[in-house]
Amino acid sequence: MILSADAIWKLLTAVRERQPLVHNITNFVAMNNTANALLALGASPAMIHSSDEVEDFVAISQALVVNIGTLYSEQIAASKLAAMRAHALGIPWILDPVGAGATPYRRAAANALARLEPSVIRGNGSEIITLMEQTQSGQGRGVDSLHGSETALDAARRLAADTKAVVAITGAVDYVTDGRRVAAIENGHPLMARVTGLGCSATAVTGACLAVEPNAFAAAVAGLAVFGVAGEIAAERSPGPGTLQVTLLDALYALDEATLKTRLRARIG
Amino acid sequence: MILSADAIWKLLTAVRERQPLVHNITNFVAMNNTANALLALGASPAMIHSSDEVEDFVAISQALVVNIGTLYSEQIAASKLAAMRAHALGIPWILDPVGAGATPYRRAAANALARLEPSVIRGNGSEIITLMEQTQSGQGRGVDSLHGSETALDAARRLAADTKAVVAITGAVDYVTDGRRVAAIENGHPLMARVTGLGCSATAVTGACLAVEPNAFAAAVAGLAVFGVAGEIAAERSPGPGTLQVTLLDALYALDEATLKTRLRARIG
Amino acid sequence: MILSADAIWKLLTAVRERQPLVHNITNFVAMNNTANALLALGASPAMIHSSDEVEDFVAISQALVVNIGTLYSEQIAASKLAAMRAHALGIPWILDPVGAGATPYRRAAANALARLEPSVIRGNGSEIITLMEQTQSGQGRGVDSLHGSETALDAARRLAADTKAVVAITGAVDYVTDGRRVAAIENGHPLMARVTGLGCSATAVTGACLAVEPNAFAAAVAGLAVFGVAGEIAAERSPGPGTLQVTLLDALYALDEATLKTRLRARIG
Repeated sequence: MILSADAIWKLLTAVRERQPLVHNITNFVAMNNTANALLALGASPAMIHSSDEVEDFVAISQALVVNIGTLYSEQIAASKLAAMRAHALGIPWILDPVGAGATPYRRAAANALARLEPSVIRGNGSEIITLMEQTQSGQGRGVDSLHGSETALDAARRLAADTKAVVAITGAVDYVTDGRRVAAIENGHPLMARVTGLGCSATAVTGACLAVEPNAFAAAVAGLAVFGVAGEIAAERSPGPGTLQVTLLDALYALDEATLKTRLRARIG
Repeated sequence: MILSADAIWKLLTAVRERQPLVHNITNFVAMNNTANALLALGASPAMIHSSDEVEDFVAISQALVVNIGTLYSEQIAASKLAAMRAHALGIPWILDPVGAGATPYRRAAANALARLEPSVIRGNGSEIITLMEQTQSGQGRGVDSLHGSETALDAARRLAADTKAVVAITGAVDYVTDGRRVAAIENGHPLMARVTGLGCSATAVTGACLAVEPNAFAAAVAGLAVFGVAGEIAAERSPGPGTLQVTLLDALYALDEATLKTRLRARIG
Repeated sequence: MILSADAIWKLLTAVRERQPLVHNITNFVAMNNTANALLALGASPAMIHSSDEVEDFVAISQALVVNIGTLYSEQIAASKLAAMRAHALGIPWILDPVGAGATPYRRAAANALARLEPSVIRGNGSEIITLMEQTQSGQGRGVDSLHGSETALDAARRLAADTKAVVAITGAVDYVTDGRRVAAIENGHPLMARVTGLGCSATAVTGACLAVEPNAFAAAVAGLAVFGVAGEIAAERSPGPGTLQVTLLDALYALDEATLKTRLRARIG
């Protein structure tokens, strides 16, 4: 069963044993904590973003993470090259369309990348809705975080059907869908929203899971579950967001089978 | 009374309630801790720096922060576009002229930006003196941190008169002036100088205050006071600068009315 | 005696007293923790990477650090300009050839920089072996971390002889060689490998030592010894890599003579 705690634990164990090389083309805000989240998890991160070498580097990696947080033109070019090469070689890749709806430039970039056959797309509700509208009508929207989970989930289902990607929406409850099945993960903690780049780290952790698990739906559920459990453990130990950023890495590093199984709140929704 | 603890507390409360979107074009060293300081404070940060989208993004923001720490040519172009657009739309913006006197390139960039009508300019003593000399004579200087507060304060008064910006000098004592009035804030702690990017974070926190307070003098006093109080609380709890960086975010997040009012040491100097 | 604990302590004291300005052209992942390591040590870091100002800035600095972790073309150009200017002015500089063997682009850049007369080159075993092969035959290799210390040490000796640089290999045991002498430092802790950018910080700390010590062999031994001792103190206090990143800065800041002398495990190997 894809959602069983046993399966998620085995997937985490596989990451720790195989230490997959995860190639990240990501934003400058979250670059440090993303690399640290991957190291704490047990993966081997590399942040390589020049068009002069991304195709060579992705070819020796086990997964690719593309995140458009601090977008610039050279990054779009490099991300396209890397994503196309990854796809050609059968290497899974994940797209994080940060702020996809905020400007026309960002909408266009996110939409172009979403068409390059990512294995998984992970965003918040507004980002997923924006991408869905893009792939259907070409129209965009401004920044908006006022979408209920219901609305976003419907958009996620359609986006998954359109792009063939597994789509993950993170929020108070995280949802993962391949267009047919929907998984819901209820781990995590509200204080996590007060630390920058944790969504980016969740995407990268999911990328590490993709590196060892060919079933993208299972990898996305495992990645968000592990990250959510570590996050809630950290939040319980933290008087504020500064401490949370630090203890989250400790919790990812130390997460054991009993803790994961006791805390996991995932279901087919 | 602008400097009353009540007024500062109300301003902080307004930031927490309205969660203003603060657009940052900032340096790569401080990008993560700046975003985290804004989130801990209660604002909503975005780091957007491409010329292809800064004009669109600043238009949906409530304040703009420009920081030249890791300057490069495309950043100068993007910062000018964003600052001019902000000014045209009546959106307040704040300039942090990091290392303004270190090289001719940096002096020219800082000077050009200072002419684009920022609401506030915040720097250390040497940076403010450099900017003042620039706006008057076109001559520059090297790196120099040996300026007494008296000298820098005089330069700040004249720079404020020349640029119509409120000018803030941070150091052992922070000063804020609009060219006529001068406020002095004696919060903070020497250990803060051993953590990179805290000046950048102080600028960003002031930017968040500008987003909710049209009086730039009041916003600058409030921003530096809140940051200084949080910093001294954190320093008292920290054996060294590593812990200080973390606990400062916790202290910004948890700062309450009684603590602020007990610790505040601000006066019209 | 170069390796005496007394000599290392005096060198650290000199850094703390003179607070040398250390110019860094480094990667985006480690930029924040590198600056913080230098500040915690007692040096004055600056991250300046535009070709428009690196020559001016290095001229007022006491040492230069070049790190190719997140390489891009403009960084190669700026690093060459800064390194040549530093060499012309007699300012020491250190090269960190991150991932030198991963792609042809990276191999070429690392090799070109290694020819510009760095005072010290610091890398892991695979990076040093890659550089050695480059300087001799022009052939490269992929990512490979499976080189024993023996093999890398032999490559380090030859690389030192070829480039006239002191070469440092970090790993379970750190080695420093000028082509004839070899020093071994056995401080440090395995948990340090789970925090991103600590190799980069070790390079920068060595750069700060070069700023106050003309003997590059002594500076490299002192830099790696101080960093290793601080790292192992921090690891003993840390439940995981998140806390380690923070407490390492506290330990660098607080390192005293008795602790250094008790813990130091350095020898001529």
